[in-house]
Amino acid sequence: MGSSSDWGYMQEACKLLDQFGVEYDKKVISAHRMPQEMFDFAREAKDKGVKVIIAGAGGAAHLPGMLAANTPLPVIGCPAKTSALGGMDSLLSIVQMPAGIPVATTAIGPAGAKNAALLAMQILGLSDPDLQDKIVEYRKQMHDQAKESSADLVY
Amino acid sequence: MGSSSDWGYMQEACKLLDQFGVEYDKKVISAHRMPQEMFDFAREAKDKGVKVIIAGAGGAAHLPGMLAANTPLPVIGCPAKTSALGGMDSLLSIVQMPAGIPVATTAIGPAGAKNAALLAMQILGLSDPDLQDKIVEYRKQMHDQAKESSADLVY
Amino acid sequence: MGSSSDWGYMQEACKLLDQFGVEYDKKVISAHRMPQEMFDFAREAKDKGVKVIIAGAGGAAHLPGMLAANTPLPVIGCPAKTSALGGMDSLLSIVQMPAGIPVATTAIGPAGAKNAALLAMQILGLSDPDLQDKIVEYRKQMHDQAKESSADLVY
Amino acid sequence: MGSSSDWGYMQEACKLLDQFGVEYDKKVISAHRMPQEMFDFAREAKDKGVKVIIAGAGGAAHLPGMLAANTPLPVIGCPAKTSALGGMDSLLSIVQMPAGIPVATTAIGPAGAKNAALLAMQILGLSDPDLQDKIVEYRKQMHDQAKESSADLVY
Amino acid sequence: MGSSSDWGYMQEACKLLDQFGVEYDKKVISAHRMPQEMFDFAREAKDKGVKVIIAGAGGAAHLPGMLAANTPLPVIGCPAKTSALGGMDSLLSIVQMPAGIPVATTAIGPAGAKNAALLAMQILGLSDPDLQDKIVEYRKQMHDQAKESSADLVY
Amino acid sequence: MGSSSDWGYMQEACKLLDQFGVEYDKKVISAHRMPQEMFDFAREAKDKGVKVIIAGAGGAAHLPGMLAANTPLPVIGCPAKTSALGGMDSLLSIVQMPAGIPVATTAIGPAGAKNAALLAMQILGLSDPDLQDKIVEYRKQMHDQAKESSADLVY
Amino acid sequence: MGSSSDWGYMQEACKLLDQFGVEYDKKVISAHRMPQEMFDFAREAKDKGVKVIIAGAGGAAHLPGMLAANTPLPVIGCPAKTSALGGMDSLLSIVQMPAGIPVATTAIGPAGAKNAALLAMQILGLSDPDLQDKIVEYRKQMHDQAKESSADLVY
Amino acid sequence: MGSSSDWGYMQEACKLLDQFGVEYDKKVISAHRMPQEMFDFAREAKDKGVKVIIAGAGGAAHLPGMLAANTPLPVIGCPAKTSALGGMDSLLSIVQMPAGIPVATTAIGPAGAKNAALLAMQILGLSDPDLQDKIVEYRKQMHDQAKESSADLVY
Repeated sequence: MGSSSDWGYMQEACKLLDQFGVEYDKKVISAHRMPQEMFDFAREAKDKGVKVIIAGAGGAAHLPGMLAANTPLPVIGCPAKTSALGGMDSLLSIVQMPAGIPVATTAIGPAGAKNAALLAMQILGLSDPDLQDKIVEYRKQMHDQAKESSADLVY
Repeated sequence: MGSSSDWGYMQEACKLLDQFGVEYDKKVISAHRMPQEMFDFAREAKDKGVKVIIAGAGGAAHLPGMLAANTPLPVIGCPAKTSALGGMDSLLSIVQMPAGIPVATTAIGPAGAKNAALLAMQILGLSDPDLQDKIVEYRKQMHDQAKESSADLVY
Repeated sequence: MGSSSDWGYMQEACKLLDQFGVEYDKKVISAHRMPQEMFDFAREAKDKGVKVIIAGAGGAAHLPGMLAANTPLPVIGCPAKTSALGGMDSLLSIVQMPAGIPVATTAIGPAGAKNAALLAMQILGLSDPDLQDKIVEYRKQMHDQAKESSADLVY
Repeated sequence: MGSSSDWGYMQEACKLLDQFGVEYDKKVISAHRMPQEMFDFAREAKDKGVKVIIAGAGGAAHLPGMLAANTPLPVIGCPAKTSALGGMDSLLSIVQMPAGIPVATTAIGPAGAKNAALLAMQILGLSDPDLQDKIVEYRKQMHDQAKESSADLVY
Repeated sequence: MGSSSDWGYMQEACKLLDQFGVEYDKKVISAHRMPQEMFDFAREAKDKGVKVIIAGAGGAAHLPGMLAANTPLPVIGCPAKTSALGGMDSLLSIVQMPAGIPVATTAIGPAGAKNAALLAMQILGLSDPDLQDKIVEYRKQMHDQAKESSADLVY
Repeated sequence: MGSSSDWGYMQEACKLLDQFGVEYDKKVISAHRMPQEMFDFAREAKDKGVKVIIAGAGGAAHLPGMLAANTPLPVIGCPAKTSALGGMDSLLSIVQMPAGIPVATTAIGPAGAKNAALLAMQILGLSDPDLQDKIVEYRKQMHDQAKESSADLVY
Repeated sequence: MGSSSDWGYMQEACKLLDQFGVEYDKKVISAHRMPQEMFDFAREAKDKGVKVIIAGAGGAAHLPGMLAANTPLPVIGCPAKTSALGGMDSLLSIVQMPAGIPVATTAIGPAGAKNAALLAMQILGLSDPDLQDKIVEYRKQMHDQAKESSADLVY
Repeated sequence: MGSSSDWGYMQEACKLLDQFGVEYDKKVISAHRMPQEMFDFAREAKDKGVKVIIAGAGGAAHLPGMLAANTPLPVIGCPAKTSALGGMDSLLSIVQMPAGIPVATTAIGPAGAKNAALLAMQILGLSDPDLQDKIVEYRKQMHDQAKESSADLVY
């Protein structure tokens, strides 16, 4: 993520990866304050065995797009909610990439962080049937919880 | 895609997949007019050997999210530019998915369609080194073209 | 509604229906987590004697439109206020339906939920003069309360 | 509609009602230039046998809401696309009604006008099985056309 | 104002009118819940000696425009801040009036209410030199306070 | 107006003033390119017998507010439609004035320019019964034209 | 700044200038309440030895642009976050200057104030190598802090 | 600039620099397609004698911010107008920089490009009295042209 202040929502991604037992590395790599590390990270990621990169950032959120520009790996971008504009700035800075360099963008805030983890696992699941099965199972649980939650609709 | 009117920008995805020699199936599946086919398509996709789904739609664009809700495969959503609101409606309808069901969203319009194809190929490339090499090569060409385009900066 | 978290504002609809003595069924049917139940509900609604469907959802709010796609009954959509974008995402995801499948959209948040109940009763009132009379009476009360509220304008 | 300039998109509603053989009256009633006629129309509508009112207007679009304030009949509002703001002004002026007086809002522009006719017929169809059947049939045609349109996806 | 809930910000206008000793009448006249009173008020205002009308409303704010449609007096509209959209809905519903019926729109919230009172007094001041002098004097005080406030800039 | 490029829409105001036989002066006074003239104009306006100032400007539209800051006369601001943002920038730059200095803002583009002239004449009409009568007459004509325009609703 | 209420975020600029030992003057100069002082300040700034002007303002934020119109010195504008629209009004009022008079605009709120100070020092650093070195050193510290902050990513 | 397609509006900057006789280098450096060249350019700029960098880009416009992250020189960002969102995406991606790395942002499109050149020259003018004089002279011409343009206000 671009700043430790992004940890507030990005930890949702980590929690889910932990829950699924998927190995990952988490760190702050600021596009603006650590540009060289960002470049190095992106360029070395593939050879280090990284499969998918999840990047959360806010405001003029350049991290996901700049990582994507430096690696052939799929990059998932999670826009942070921002104080002034609600995250519309983060969203547009991440999703409106020019033709050539995609960033797989998820929703603003915690839901998007959670979904970034799920999307990453759906991608990994293409060559890992066990992981794919876990996702199917996770969805079944969500389904059951949603179904049962009708019982909560009381004044 | 949700309508044959989306073909205007979504063909950018097809052209790129053709160029890379990646096999794909293209069709109109309207979430609102063909809901049963949409469900069937999404639910059968995995067993038919589909790896990644690219869905383009505009306005209250429900197709990508509803496909995603019915398959554990990664789904990429491409927001159409719209006449009234420029595509902001399409973008928000696709990207703001609730926690649990991600859609990998790309930019509004043709750039997003092109990037959806590239993102799909980056995903497929994780288990297909040749495809990944082609992406690296494609980027090299983009790089060279961009570099040479400085020569075009004349009044 | 799409989630039990929508109960916060959607209960305004239920309260009003209770107050008017109109029979209804309330439940969570998530478009994304319970797609099959959503389909079944929409498709069976008419034959079960349902007259009007009210659907509240937030973010990439697909529930109202997907219900509408699966039933010839009128569907009323209530956009939830959202944390990041204030409900603009919910509103556009619900109201910007393509030609062919309408969703009768009301305001964002509790006012829209209340109005969804009133709109449903105005629809039912077309063939139920007693209910229509109750709406006229309800409006008279609103009128009187508004008129009397001028007395509250004191520092 | 609020102005004869709204005819450009509102005629889509009329065409569809004609196609379905549903009787209707069309006229310009400007909330701002013909306020008395607007009041009289709304107040007399029910006794004249009107069942549903469709109102199209743009900018500070007050017509749908002011009609709704003067009749217990359901009122459907169709926001016009506007030159400066794309119709966002029309949409918010119509949909953001305060609690008590709903307007059933459809999409901006021609799609919303078409859907207003369909929504009106879905409402009328609740007590007119033949009309409801026609809607089901219309949807079947839309479905078939959408399905066949995959054949149009050629460069 | 359209609701007693608008009193929160609209009292700023009253306070200022009191401070300047300008006579006024304040009341709730809801465009949607009291349409007949609204019409009567607007139509009788001129003959009752009213010079300027100030109307505050929120959301689909129809009050200022509908008053303006029923009187040749100048009408000033004050958009309320709204919970979901910050008042953008109120602003557009008030300011985007069609050609023919102007509403003099001020800023969203308390500043706009205060300015509505000042604008009304600037209008009245055209034929009331004493009032105009008071405005000049009020501005001088604002000027002095602003100038002195530099002393407050301390950590 | 702030630029001769504003003449495109601001001429609507002049045409209407001509039609009503109201005397006025029109000129370009750029807040940014002619700041001294702008100050002098605003400060001398009252003593020169000006009653109301109409100012049209676009983008970061500072002219109406800066004129208002330098005169106790009522100032009407007309936001220009802009190429990039449709006039949202002009609107917010004009209407969101801080407490103390109001600008009576009208709609974006030609409708707003026309309404600025009408608003100015409504203000002048407060002490000019003939002018007020002309506005009433003008409205009657608008009313009749609107009413007759129903005849234009033909395919 | 345009008001002492801007001190909340604008003090970030002052703190940073203090930290770097750069001399500056801070004051409230309201474009709307102190127009003459604003003009005088801008016109005299260059001869008084001022090099760069930083102006913070909110809503219809005219201060930065009006200062820029009256001096050939570079002017940096800092949009205030606003209660109703989050600062979108401030941002557009500052950044959308017409051709001829630029304002160097920074982000909404405290980050923009801090960056205004840094930008000013980058400008001054062009002819002050020591100051430029301090900026390089400051960035190095930011870099190190960002790098170390990965250690904070714990649940 | 980030692409040769930006030349359409960015040439306004070059034309003005030519007119003032200020030396500059123009080139395409795409943040996403030429990341290494972008880094190298930014890092070497100061030692090569560059004083100010002007960067134009559109959509998820990362070029200005990433250049700024790699040089202590002042960087001016010019948001491109975009087809779908009018340039709001470009603007927010450029201006909403996090604390620590400023980008001096100008208006969307050609006016912003022109102003970027002027701002750069105002910065250079701080240590180049002749250039500063030229700016003052240029403004005088703008002033005179604006003043004379009142003569163009004819139907």
